[in-house]
Amino acid sequence: MSSGENYTAEIIELRNEMNQMQMDFSENSNAFFLCSMALIIFLMQCGFAFLEAGAVRSKNTTNILIKNLLDSCIAVIGYWSIGWALAFGDSSNNIVGLFIGHTQFFLAGLTNYPKFFFQYVFAATSATIVSGAVAERCEFANYITYCTVISTFVYPVLTHWGWHPQGWMYLGIQTSDIHTTYLDFAGAGVVHLCGGTISFAAAYIIGPRIGRFPEDGEEESIEIKGHSVPFAALGGFILMFGFLAFNGGSMADIVKPGEGRIVALAMINTILCGAFAALTFLIIHFLTKGKWTLLLTINACLAGMVSSCAGCNRMEPWASSFTGIGAGLIYLGLSHLMIRHVFALLRVDDPLDAFAVHAGGGLWGLLSTCIIAHEGIVYAIADAIGNHHGSLSFRQAFAQLGWQLICALAIVLWSLLWMVPIFLFLKKIGKLRVSAEVEINGLDIYKHGEAAYPLHAYGHGWDDYEPIKDKKSNAAPSRDHAESEQFR
Amino acid sequence: MSSGENYTAEIIELRNEMNQMQMDFSENSNAFFLCSMALIIFLMQCGFAFLEAGAVRSKNTTNILIKNLLDSCIAVIGYWSIGWALAFGDSSNNIVGLFIGHTQFFLAGLTNYPKFFFQYVFAATSATIVSGAVAERCEFANYITYCTVISTFVYPVLTHWGWHPQGWMYLGIQTSDIHTTYLDFAGAGVVHLCGGTISFAAAYIIGPRIGRFPEDGEEESIEIKGHSVPFAALGGFILMFGFLAFNGGSMADIVKPGEGRIVALAMINTILCGAFAALTFLIIHFLTKGKWTLLLTINACLAGMVSSCAGCNRMEPWASSFTGIGAGLIYLGLSHLMIRHVFALLRVDDPLDAFAVHAGGGLWGLLSTCIIAHEGIVYAIADAIGNHHGSLSFRQAFAQLGWQLICALAIVLWSLLWMVPIFLFLKKIGKLRVSAEVEINGLDIYKHGEAAYPLHAYGHGWDDYEPIKDKKSNAAPSRDHAESEQFR
Amino acid sequence: MSSGENYTAEIIELRNEMNQMQMDFSENSNAFFLCSMALIIFLMQCGFAFLEAGAVRSKNTTNILIKNLLDSCIAVIGYWSIGWALAFGDSSNNIVGLFIGHTQFFLAGLTNYPKFFFQYVFAATSATIVSGAVAERCEFANYITYCTVISTFVYPVLTHWGWHPQGWMYLGIQTSDIHTTYLDFAGAGVVHLCGGTISFAAAYIIGPRIGRFPEDGEEESIEIKGHSVPFAALGGFILMFGFLAFNGGSMADIVKPGEGRIVALAMINTILCGAFAALTFLIIHFLTKGKWTLLLTINACLAGMVSSCAGCNRMEPWASSFTGIGAGLIYLGLSHLMIRHVFALLRVDDPLDAFAVHAGGGLWGLLSTCIIAHEGIVYAIADAIGNHHGSLSFRQAFAQLGWQLICALAIVLWSLLWMVPIFLFLKKIGKLRVSAEVEINGLDIYKHGEAAYPLHAYGHGWDDYEPIKDKKSNAAPSRDHAESEQFR
Repeated sequence: MSSGENYTAEIIELRNEMNQMQMDFSENSNAFFLCSMALIIFLMQCGFAFLEAGAVRSKNTTNILIKNLLDSCIAVIGYWSIGWALAFGDSSNNIVGLFIGHTQFFLAGLTNYPKFFFQYVFAATSATIVSGAVAERCEFANYITYCTVISTFVYPVLTHWGWHPQGWMYLGIQTSDIHTTYLDFAGAGVVHLCGGTISFAAAYIIGPRIGRFPEDGEEESIEIKGHSVPFAALGGFILMFGFLAFNGGSMADIVKPGEGRIVALAMINTILCGAFAALTFLIIHFLTKGKWTLLLTINACLAGMVSSCAGCNRMEPWASSFTGIGAGLIYLGLSHLMIRHVFALLRVDDPLDAFAVHAGGGLWGLLSTCIIAHEGIVYAIADAIGNHHGSLSFRQAFAQLGWQLICALAIVLWSLLWMVPIFLFLKKIGKLRVSAEVEINGLDIYKHGEAAYPLHAYGHGWDDYEPIKDKKSNAAPSRDHAESEQFR
Repeated sequence: MSSGENYTAEIIELRNEMNQMQMDFSENSNAFFLCSMALIIFLMQCGFAFLEAGAVRSKNTTNILIKNLLDSCIAVIGYWSIGWALAFGDSSNNIVGLFIGHTQFFLAGLTNYPKFFFQYVFAATSATIVSGAVAERCEFANYITYCTVISTFVYPVLTHWGWHPQGWMYLGIQTSDIHTTYLDFAGAGVVHLCGGTISFAAAYIIGPRIGRFPEDGEEESIEIKGHSVPFAALGGFILMFGFLAFNGGSMADIVKPGEGRIVALAMINTILCGAFAALTFLIIHFLTKGKWTLLLTINACLAGMVSSCAGCNRMEPWASSFTGIGAGLIYLGLSHLMIRHVFALLRVDDPLDAFAVHAGGGLWGLLSTCIIAHEGIVYAIADAIGNHHGSLSFRQAFAQLGWQLICALAIVLWSLLWMVPIFLFLKKIGKLRVSAEVEINGLDIYKHGEAAYPLHAYGHGWDDYEPIKDKKSNAAPSRDHAESEQFR
Repeated sequence: MSSGENYTAEIIELRNEMNQMQMDFSENSNAFFLCSMALIIFLMQCGFAFLEAGAVRSKNTTNILIKNLLDSCIAVIGYWSIGWALAFGDSSNNIVGLFIGHTQFFLAGLTNYPKFFFQYVFAATSATIVSGAVAERCEFANYITYCTVISTFVYPVLTHWGWHPQGWMYLGIQTSDIHTTYLDFAGAGVVHLCGGTISFAAAYIIGPRIGRFPEDGEEESIEIKGHSVPFAALGGFILMFGFLAFNGGSMADIVKPGEGRIVALAMINTILCGAFAALTFLIIHFLTKGKWTLLLTINACLAGMVSSCAGCNRMEPWASSFTGIGAGLIYLGLSHLMIRHVFALLRVDDPLDAFAVHAGGGLWGLLSTCIIAHEGIVYAIADAIGNHHGSLSFRQAFAQLGWQLICALAIVLWSLLWMVPIFLFLKKIGKLRVSAEVEINGLDIYKHGEAAYPLHAYGHGWDDYEPIKDKKSNAAPSRDHAESEQFR
């Protein structure tokens, strides 16, 4: 045996070892990345819970909190048993595969656990959006029904369309010079437009809270305030935290050259869009109303982050100013103008502005990514000015925008197709909405037996209320006992 | 010199470089993995703090919060100085090594910092469980004492037994055809069964809160409600978040082939077990009591997650339904039946159900992993049916279950052996429990000088209370000032 | 062609592939590490928000929350447009480069997105510290101004000085036997000393809250209590969580041999310093005042963590006891002695002790790292005792301490140089502080139109207040409705 053969064999072996090492590292790195981002996205359930808990009255607080807890629980069972199979199960290479997957029910045969875990937290998020729109009057059976249907069926099918290589939205239109696909990196459409659309339908069908709209044709509607601004803010902060992982994690892979940079870029664009939307809204609101509103600024910030979902991996940071300011204006338009006029006419009562934040922000995100992100219309214009085969770029960019609009429409119609009949059916059988008595008196005690702040649990026994003035006199020796909560 | 030697040398060098690279990556990846999971587990202290703060009355809120803060502080000093050495310090290869480590006190000579950091957050968790069981009446000295003893001594020794390659529980019984070890991936036994057992002992010895049990033989006991359902829910959400890292992170390593998948599998099983336990409990509770309880459902969910600790790396997702439903039923049994009857007889008052959640969930987890996880009794039955040397599998599976029971018993006895005398001693010297006067009036002001919600800090000066009806009239120009907190 | 050439070519190719693989992995691992740590640091905004919200009165809660929300928003726009360029933009190799970077405005030409994202969250943190010191009386315009200036200009320039390889503090003094640099791993100086110094200036110039200091020469000042201890604790827990990532993440790199260990070491030292500071403070406070204070213990813990920032990568864990205990004593001195006497004389009202925590802890951190960390004075003494060229070590160690003092002084002066004129200017134009009427009645409703806890949002309609005694009688059938929040 010649030594040459030895070297060859050794080199081949070395290369094999190296490839094996690369594969192992890649698999483990991606698993770690997906799991850690999914963990943070999971915490968004807590964010939604508190954003919503702060925005309802104290008498309905337990109700909204349990709903957010059950979301995570129902979604994991629904997505494990059926949802994953519909979304990412293998599919025959025919027309069925364009619309639905149909293997790996109950995860049978699945090995890619990290992807399942990551996709599950997305499914849970899509279901949780709706609860804000029906808060303070929704029957518990309704919660459980729509949460199950969305996380098990409506949302998974949409992700198959848009994110599975066989899905019809993903495949897009392919001609010799036009190549379209569905551009939605982190779910502006399949998560937020879907959730926002269902929110609108739910809020419309369930009807407004008692006392929300004037009964006798008065012009101004009454604002029903939530019971805790700090809880709403806590929810907002946690959601911002979660959104960064939501968008960064959507890379789903962090081993190929440059992927880490894109993860960071997605996060930067997310916070930039949120910041531009928040400041745009805040300034206009201040100029018109004279108040620096916190609650609406949080919503505007979230709308900005939602709008970044579609293209945060393909936008330069400067482009975030366009997307973010646009999102702020759209939220402003939807929440101030439309809600005041159109919604009041339709008597749509959406306590959390779920429609404006998620559907408005989501739709704008889908469009803006065709305008301002790489290969978008702005780039086509720049090409045209520079005379680099401009007309081709133009056609491609507008074709993409058109396809994106078709996809957005499909998402809206699909969401309504299933959820409207369900809501109407629940209404018919009286399981959509609680009775007026329960609504007026509060859901917590009647439905859950748990007041959020039981009066008995407050107060202490050290002294009584001591006016602050008396503190200055030295006649008050029991200074440490001065605080009394007797009346809380 | 022949060129052949050159090639050989080059290939050897290349292989060395590759091995070095693999080692460096492995070390750094594992360090990153352990640190980031440990960070999230660290936040569980915040979760416990709020779960417990929500469940106590407002007059004892500061007291329970400071306890959870000090837990982290005391545990790190205790575990750094002594605990780590007992748990994972090297040990002589003799009988001593079966029970205890005895080097690296104060981390002298330690280089594996990531492992220390990860193990520390576990130790802090094990100590924190007890505080729920003695809430609202525990002397501060008692807190500090048991926290120190558990994190410095009781818990570290248990981990040496179960997780150190020289520990007697780890080594198990080895015969020619039976190989048992201690199966506890993430501490169902050493963390939760230990903490839950001590909770029971502490709650029994310290006695019930004043007013908790009927004084004159009445049948029904009075429920003392916590002051804030939202805080309890906040704690619950953070604990669910933390549990996913707790169980996933227990892999402790994420570089060898397939390890990333197991991390994700552990997380999936954790949330599935929590979901099944929560829904099982919720439905039965609703059917029997007619209320959708949030607080108990959170506990059931946590019990489910605790039960997943033992085998979440070795269960298929479908098996989580068994483990989770079982955990829900056990929590139901312990909290509804036993607590109502046995506990009332013994006058054990465990405000947070720490015993039911942690000891019940933990013990069930240890057993169920021998039943439903790979190589468990269910698999042995399947083997037997398929005639694949069934009797051997059976013997192995039951031997493992037996060993697991012995280990569980050892954990219970070891925990009681040290903590019961300590609690009795503290009782004797009057440092176990605060005086009746302090308990009735609340611990916060007397012990800490800090009321949770000082009355002086509430209220504002804009207008007075304005009834909502008046808003409709245009005679109220100061609409923005309508909210008054005067009476809060 | 000889086969030898083939082997050579193949080996070279293999080596190239390996190097490429190493580069890709390194880049992606670092990106992942930086992004995930930055995410957790981002959550510190939530921590500051709640630490501060809990420490103000309910009438100013919305005000402090919106400020923390806007911090993140303003800082990202400021740091993206200008801050990054000044801090880490390339610079000419001349005297300008010692002080400032001047390329990559608006991130033009930037590819290292992960580093930008990580540095941004630091910038946001530096700006957020000040709000605690001016809480409950600060004009909104003032917030926006100082936040913009700090995150866009003051802080970025400091980081150029200290952390950019061309910065003058980084370069230090280099002679044949003395080599000094600026030792500040995670920003004890550039983040915390800077923020704490500005806090002091702001609190002094803005003046104390109405009612804070005695009007007529009485000896004791009145303590204005915050409205929610649980919120303050929540903030404290989140900040501790964030600090671990803040310090561990400052490694900024986790691929070279041993880097993962240092990340873990930094985290361990952080929690150890915090624990020693907290326990030191708590014990002395208890011995002198007789109360186990939660709020001040949280502050002491944070001061300890701040003090660990400078040298947590270069200290052995045992050295954390020195740094931590020192931080506890310094916080004690600054908050108890100085604030009671010096501050009262100067009428400096710093509601959150931002000066004591951040400036005190930060300065102590900068010094202690020259004393107790590797190559510090303690090591020089040990060297001297062991006769290993002790005098050289001594000179080096003291030169380093001297340089560190010069750097600390520069940070203080630079911070004051810009912020004092700005605060004075704002004072002159009446935009520093709200009017007395607004301050007394609260900022929330007047400035923001949003009361933190709108009274209308509380209460429910199930029964009225039912005394706990009545529950025992069977005459109360509506037991589940017993809790009433009517008066909340």
